[in-house]
Amino acid sequence: MNKLVYHKRVTSLKQKLSRMTADTVWIIQPENRRYLSGFKASDAQIAESSGSLLISEARSVLITDSRYTTAAKNEAVGFEIQTLGQDLIEEFPAIVNQMGTKILAFEEDYLTWGLHGRLVEKFKELSPQVNLVPISGLVEKMREVKDDLEIEVLATSAELIAAVLDEVISGLRTGITEKAVAKQIEDLALEAGAEDLAFPSIVASGPNSALPHAVPTNREIRPKEPIIIDVGVRLGGYCSDMTRTVFLGKPMPDFRKIYRTVRQAQLAALKEIRPGVDTDYPDSIARQVIRDAGFGKYFGHALGHGVGLATHERPRLGPRKPEKLKKGMVVTVEPGIYIPGRGGVRLEEMVVINKDGPRILTKAGNFYDFTS
Amino acid sequence: MNKLVYHKRVTSLKQKLSRMTADTVWIIQPENRRYLSGFKASDAQIAESSGSLLISEARSVLITDSRYTTAAKNEAVGFEIQTLGQDLIEEFPAIVNQMGTKILAFEEDYLTWGLHGRLVEKFKELSPQVNLVPISGLVEKMREVKDDLEIEVLATSAELIAAVLDEVISGLRTGITEKAVAKQIEDLALEAGAEDLAFPSIVASGPNSALPHAVPTNREIRPKEPIIIDVGVRLGGYCSDMTRTVFLGKPMPDFRKIYRTVRQAQLAALKEIRPGVDTDYPDSIARQVIRDAGFGKYFGHALGHGVGLATHERPRLGPRKPEKLKKGMVVTVEPGIYIPGRGGVRLEEMVVINKDGPRILTKAGNFYDFTS
Repeated sequence: MNKLVYHKRVTSLKQKLSRMTADTVWIIQPENRRYLSGFKASDAQIAESSGSLLISEARSVLITDSRYTTAAKNEAVGFEIQTLGQDLIEEFPAIVNQMGTKILAFEEDYLTWGLHGRLVEKFKELSPQVNLVPISGLVEKMREVKDDLEIEVLATSAELIAAVLDEVISGLRTGITEKAVAKQIEDLALEAGAEDLAFPSIVASGPNSALPHAVPTNREIRPKEPIIIDVGVRLGGYCSDMTRTVFLGKPMPDFRKIYRTVRQAQLAALKEIRPGVDTDYPDSIARQVIRDAGFGKYFGHALGHGVGLATHERPRLGPRKPEKLKKGMVVTVEPGIYIPGRGGVRLEEMVVINKDGPRILTKAGNFYDFTS
Repeated sequence: MNKLVYHKRVTSLKQKLSRMTADTVWIIQPENRRYLSGFKASDAQIAESSGSLLISEARSVLITDSRYTTAAKNEAVGFEIQTLGQDLIEEFPAIVNQMGTKILAFEEDYLTWGLHGRLVEKFKELSPQVNLVPISGLVEKMREVKDDLEIEVLATSAELIAAVLDEVISGLRTGITEKAVAKQIEDLALEAGAEDLAFPSIVASGPNSALPHAVPTNREIRPKEPIIIDVGVRLGGYCSDMTRTVFLGKPMPDFRKIYRTVRQAQLAALKEIRPGVDTDYPDSIARQVIRDAGFGKYFGHALGHGVGLATHERPRLGPRKPEKLKKGMVVTVEPGIYIPGRGGVRLEEMVVINKDGPRILTKAGNFYDFTS
């Protein structure tokens, strides 16, 4: 990313801050941290932070520990780097004090209840006192609409995985295990230059395909059964996410109907993706198609989600909490039907929302026409 | 795992519960969840739970959503499975009510401040009212000491990665990139039957080895420079974790001294690992060796950590918050010296604490004798 991008994002955050009661924002969520600073480290666990950002009107500070100091200095753009010892709680109050913070905004959807409580205790010892106020979705909201450079990277990420999936699907043969297919996908993706998989690939065949979050097993794939392949890579930090369901040989009539229904639901939903539409509307359209075909109770998850630095991010395209779709959002459209014990079908495209509708980023064929 | 194991763990938790003010425990931390129930699913993000456990004296309930119902039914031992729709907050109070819960204990180190607040609001509508009380480390503490079966699985996990690392180290040649080495490790590990890597492998050469949490790059490894390789796999859910630092050709005298110091620190610390010793003591011994050699300020992290269902878990072998080492704990011993801009050395063994001292699980040679 261009260095100016980070400057622009931090400036925009500081403008938001000037309209808030807080005078300093504390960013601990890893993708938010990267979005604002360029610092790439991930957190192994919620309790294992690799660093956080303190942003006030006057200063932008990245606090980390000695494991990450060098990386932070190389990667973070426009941030002072401060290295703490191993106990954030002990040293944090002094840093906050030194920044002149009086009201500190924290990310309520990421800070644990326990850490919050310990900080409140520590802050009581400070003079002047520092108060904590919660924020929710502040940076996540900024991340919803992608700029041109982000869209370019997301498109490349999607193109890469689409090409890999094309190759893997054309090589599928009876008798290969789900795990082996997953391995092929990873090998080809890394060879093609992906930084990593965006998430563990799902390769689910036969009855396993009825599990929307199946983990690849040693089961060998067989003719006529559904095989769901749900994959994505990370490239320049940005994720891709796509799903195809394939069959070796002609599926049984019931799965032809299920497939056809899912594809119709997807196409119907895609027609309703454009700026200004409520996020629950395309979901309701897809759900109606599936319900009309008699499979209503077998589509349990939401239609889709935003994709960016995280595989799953705002907005959510589901039945609740509608908000408006905007130009520049990148979302998935992924209806599915899952019959417990028998199998399932999911089809997922990743699209960027343009002025007049969606542009599909996951350019790969591999759809069947089971209409006849 | 044997089904009786889960029954025993849940019974032990219920006994603890009977001595607490709470009448129901809510387990949301993924490894705790798996430890008690056998339910294997992971959580993609903190805000994307695949399920949680509600345990009262009379009942053991696993609540999940439709994506995981089938897996939960197959995997969870002795738990009733309840499938929620997509909004935990909306449906959770009714379930808690139906369990007869009056005081619900939640995991304060995992539940976010935001979700806690929303639940408190929801619970106010309930009659009788439900109160939330925090718990910290309840199940983590149970996980600290491993039973014989767990130790067997951890030993197998460690043996697997040690054999892989042996093979990779013996094949190292000038000019291969860090990324390619990491890829070899993953390929061999999966071939050997690992479920997955326990964490992204660290392969850090030359100056990159000064970053304790380096990410593999396209840098080609060269003669005489330190190459840190830190790897682990997951097997039957259980993690392994080990590190070697290797050189192609004879290193410069300063790095011979650094290596020798780290190895001496490690051996000195290992001598002090046994039941009854405080967790900060082996750390202080290793730190003293490194300080005496003049590298005190280049060893920033703790000496080690517990390993089990999570790569990093209790106990922590660091300078603060001492607790007693116990028979059956499995921990790493991993001192390191990192010279910014130049390079580093880290050596890590994973050991089980037996009655009379540590048994090393990461049986691989690959240590140098730079004493002369």
